[in-house]
Amino acid sequence: MSIPNRIESLRKLMNDRQIDVYLVPSDDNHQSEYVGEHFKSRAFITGFTGSAGTAFIAKDSAGLFTDGRYFVQAAKQLKGSGVELFKMREPGVPTLEEHLYNIVPENGVLGFDGRVVSMNLGKELEALLAKKGATLKTDSDLIDMVWEDRPSLSKEPAFYLEEKYTGESIVSKLARVREAMKEKQADYHVIAALDDINWIVNLRGNDISYFPLLLSYAVITADEMLLYIDECKLNDEILSKLAEANIKIRPYNDIYNDVLTLEAGKKVLIDPKRINYELYNLLSKNMVIIEAENPTVLMKAMKNETELANFRIAQVKDGVALTRFMKWVKEAFADPAVDPEITELSAIDKLEEFRQQQPDYIRQSFDPIIAYGENAALPHYSPTVESNAKVMPGNFLLADTGGGYMQGSTDITRTFALGEIPAVQKRDFTLVMLGNLHLGNAVFFENTYGYELDILARQPLMRYGLNFNHGTGHGIGYLMNIHEAPVNIRPYGKGAENGHPLMLGMIATNEPGYYLEGSYGIRTENEIVVNLRQHTENRDIYEFEAITYVPIDLDAVDESIMTDADKALLNAYHKMVYEKLSPHLTDDECIWLKHYTREI
Amino acid sequence: MSIPNRIESLRKLMNDRQIDVYLVPSDDNHQSEYVGEHFKSRAFITGFTGSAGTAFIAKDSAGLFTDGRYFVQAAKQLKGSGVELFKMREPGVPTLEEHLYNIVPENGVLGFDGRVVSMNLGKELEALLAKKGATLKTDSDLIDMVWEDRPSLSKEPAFYLEEKYTGESIVSKLARVREAMKEKQADYHVIAALDDINWIVNLRGNDISYFPLLLSYAVITADEMLLYIDECKLNDEILSKLAEANIKIRPYNDIYNDVLTLEAGKKVLIDPKRINYELYNLLSKNMVIIEAENPTVLMKAMKNETELANFRIAQVKDGVALTRFMKWVKEAFADPAVDPEITELSAIDKLEEFRQQQPDYIRQSFDPIIAYGENAALPHYSPTVESNAKVMPGNFLLADTGGGYMQGSTDITRTFALGEIPAVQKRDFTLVMLGNLHLGNAVFFENTYGYELDILARQPLMRYGLNFNHGTGHGIGYLMNIHEAPVNIRPYGKGAENGHPLMLGMIATNEPGYYLEGSYGIRTENEIVVNLRQHTENRDIYEFEAITYVPIDLDAVDESIMTDADKALLNAYHKMVYEKLSPHLTDDECIWLKHYTREI
Repeated sequence: MSIPNRIESLRKLMNDRQIDVYLVPSDDNHQSEYVGEHFKSRAFITGFTGSAGTAFIAKDSAGLFTDGRYFVQAAKQLKGSGVELFKMREPGVPTLEEHLYNIVPENGVLGFDGRVVSMNLGKELEALLAKKGATLKTDSDLIDMVWEDRPSLSKEPAFYLEEKYTGESIVSKLARVREAMKEKQADYHVIAALDDINWIVNLRGNDISYFPLLLSYAVITADEMLLYIDECKLNDEILSKLAEANIKIRPYNDIYNDVLTLEAGKKVLIDPKRINYELYNLLSKNMVIIEAENPTVLMKAMKNETELANFRIAQVKDGVALTRFMKWVKEAFADPAVDPEITELSAIDKLEEFRQQQPDYIRQSFDPIIAYGENAALPHYSPTVESNAKVMPGNFLLADTGGGYMQGSTDITRTFALGEIPAVQKRDFTLVMLGNLHLGNAVFFENTYGYELDILARQPLMRYGLNFNHGTGHGIGYLMNIHEAPVNIRPYGKGAENGHPLMLGMIATNEPGYYLEGSYGIRTENEIVVNLRQHTENRDIYEFEAITYVPIDLDAVDESIMTDADKALLNAYHKMVYEKLSPHLTDDECIWLKHYTREI
Repeated sequence: MSIPNRIESLRKLMNDRQIDVYLVPSDDNHQSEYVGEHFKSRAFITGFTGSAGTAFIAKDSAGLFTDGRYFVQAAKQLKGSGVELFKMREPGVPTLEEHLYNIVPENGVLGFDGRVVSMNLGKELEALLAKKGATLKTDSDLIDMVWEDRPSLSKEPAFYLEEKYTGESIVSKLARVREAMKEKQADYHVIAALDDINWIVNLRGNDISYFPLLLSYAVITADEMLLYIDECKLNDEILSKLAEANIKIRPYNDIYNDVLTLEAGKKVLIDPKRINYELYNLLSKNMVIIEAENPTVLMKAMKNETELANFRIAQVKDGVALTRFMKWVKEAFADPAVDPEITELSAIDKLEEFRQQQPDYIRQSFDPIIAYGENAALPHYSPTVESNAKVMPGNFLLADTGGGYMQGSTDITRTFALGEIPAVQKRDFTLVMLGNLHLGNAVFFENTYGYELDILARQPLMRYGLNFNHGTGHGIGYLMNIHEAPVNIRPYGKGAENGHPLMLGMIATNEPGYYLEGSYGIRTENEIVVNLRQHTENRDIYEFEAITYVPIDLDAVDESIMTDADKALLNAYHKMVYEKLSPHLTDDECIWLKHYTREI
């Protein structure tokens, strides 16, 4: 069925139901960062396959809102579909909300599947359209009725993470969640965020791209937990673990009926940032809503000793894979006469091969970025068959990739100099590295926010008039979301007041960069853990521990702009890298690594 | 009249007016940091003369709330007065608000002079007491009726700051204020903060302690400004300057009648942090209140080029005075056999003598702190006849003082080693100095907040488990408030969301310290200006310029914990100090200064 035919079928259904405009976003029912095939409704109805974009279908128009990353791709894919491209944040282009307000008629109806729209967006649209007497209709998924060969919901099996991985039993986690509910005087706690639920039940699965998560919802009371999940994914071991914690299984989609049967007038705790509009809507009919961050957000972010020990193990494995990759790349370009015929995509394959040699490797942490030369200066670049650049000497190869192991997930970026590179590129590489080393060397007291430290990562660049236009660090999940809330290291800005300070056991990335459009891109990313440095009478003093073990390419370092203290930091880091990795490498590899972790 | 007699007279007046409890705070009508003699009502009614404290008189009790600095002094001064001491923030002691809520009877009346209570506190008390049906009576100053020999309001003459000092005419400043009023759609702007008014009219006076300000109020409209001030303070030159700007003079206290005659229903801009409760109360009867920061707050904080050039001149003068003081102190202790008979108070006199030798010197910027040894570890210590310590070799002498010149005000702290001091004191001195140098060397982009840089001043100390329990920097007024809003460099905390980022021309203090109770205190304070370092395509890059020129005592520096980069920073600073000061010193003094600004 062609896109115009699909849209035509949708319009018939809209007409039957007196819906004037139908909204089709990119989300799944859980507002996940990546979604499974079943949830790619927006791609189905428009033909645009990018990761971000929201479509609307009106009676006589249809459109897609997407951002600058996707203008070219969307224009190509929308050709002939009858779907108009709205280039977000370009001059003269309305916002999605403005446009919907304009096209929904007075007293009209905006429809969408309330499960794939966040509570906050749904409430915003509801309030906005009320100004012209228009209402929302959110209780049905019209795309599902049009999409004949729609991929079914994932049936992939779940797997259990033993306590040697999680460091905490389901029973203990549930007890902590219930303690938090009690503090908020909540009778019920409804959770829709996959990572929050998967964390509590110590389960993982394979239901969405990249993040090994299980599609599920949860309803928790003082003595019971209902887990909404396709039971066929759960083996006997898992079922018995869940039963031990008095967790009852319900069919995945039953939550939408069940929440209507919760005791009216009781208090239910939900996280307005982490629940869909439909659930909120149903819950608010009969219950008192307590809006607060899911208590699991902070619990999950503060890794326990077992998790931290595992993370270090995963990082050693990933460090071995990345070091082999670095050696492979470096050796390929060692002799300028030889054409090693490496491309961005072939490099991705090679790195994946090295990762797969590692025990307990599960999958990539996210869509890998391996970018050569000017491609590395593009924000959010991932190589495609069309963009795939051949890797040549004289510029940088940037690799921002990660691996998921039973022992945790990694997110590591290294930038490699291929052959001889210009002095200015060495200078910029060194400045980025200094930002990474200085932030990693921070000492700060408890109750310090990420934005109080960000300056450390930017000052070396700023002394040369340079900067980078992204945050310096984000949180990392344990075999789950690679961008995990609430950890954030970036300049102060909107939303900062809702954040948490950096707390013991939190893991952040430390990833300053520099990008020169049309020329090159540099980023050096370690993961860093918040550790106690010193207990004091007043505020305790914290520090970071770098837990990423991959050489920072000395071929790209300009020693002349480093102080002795800078050199000491780099040398100490490289000494640790050698100590961590060498027991897992061949003699040849050790000789090579010794050279690339040598003292300067 | 004894204190009990004064309280008895007050109670009679309260009784006549059906007031149950009468509140007597420390403020003047403008919530100034220092107040004139006329406004010391709380000292009059309780006998307690400390700078901070709030008294209440009820029918059968009376009390004084004050903080830890004053527990000893207050206990002594309140003896026999019948006034009970409430030690603020001690366990079991209620807050002022809690206590008032408890003692004001149901449907009772709390009285105070609404001019000496801030709008925010007044509103808070109003809302709190409404819960038990109680009301406020704020339209009379009962203390004035009891206080027979009350000092009259200051009659000291005003002086005009020519444009060579201010860099901007009254007409230009008023135009900018009116532009801001227009943006906020305000018909009237009522100002009660002395520094805001004095800044607009380019006048200064001598009406309160330390800050050379004139008691005044202002009402500004699109074409007129009413200045409420005792006209006898204004000479003909001033009167003609004011007339040129179409500024009309009204008697100081007439504003309380005049605001009732403003056009009803019009919009009036007031700053809830910078106006008293009585004015707010009167204005809100008939007008629409727009609450916003006085536009002058930001204008005044961003010093113009003329002001900055003057500040540098004032700092050279003060640098000369302080350097002579340092030389005097150092030489007195050069020969351990000689007893130089110096005390904290005699040192204050000596420093004042050096300041008075400087042209255009007006007065001290604030109550000077010269503290020896363990006294320097006490927060807010200023020497008194009782505490006055004799200065001896083997410890630090800390001097936190400032001078007001026609060219601006200074606030400078230096800590001097007397004779040989223990190694640990040298280490701590060096760590404090490094915090000062590192913050002073910061590079940051526009829109950066003070709390994003504070870490730089604390990291050297924190690496050794040390810290200091006060902010790192505050703004500085030009011959006015020495703590000038909104500049603030301190860790993120309450109120941060209302602040402004660091903007070009702002001056901050840079004053890390370290205090070991019972032993010693260290603080090194420079003033720093926010300058443009580099214009870029995105956010411009800023840096600080240290404009305080006084040697940092090399006798107390431990070079072994400094990197080469640290030494370069110190040497560059000292080189500048020598260059700035030496043209104003005798040959002897130059030789001495050369030694104390030598390269290390």
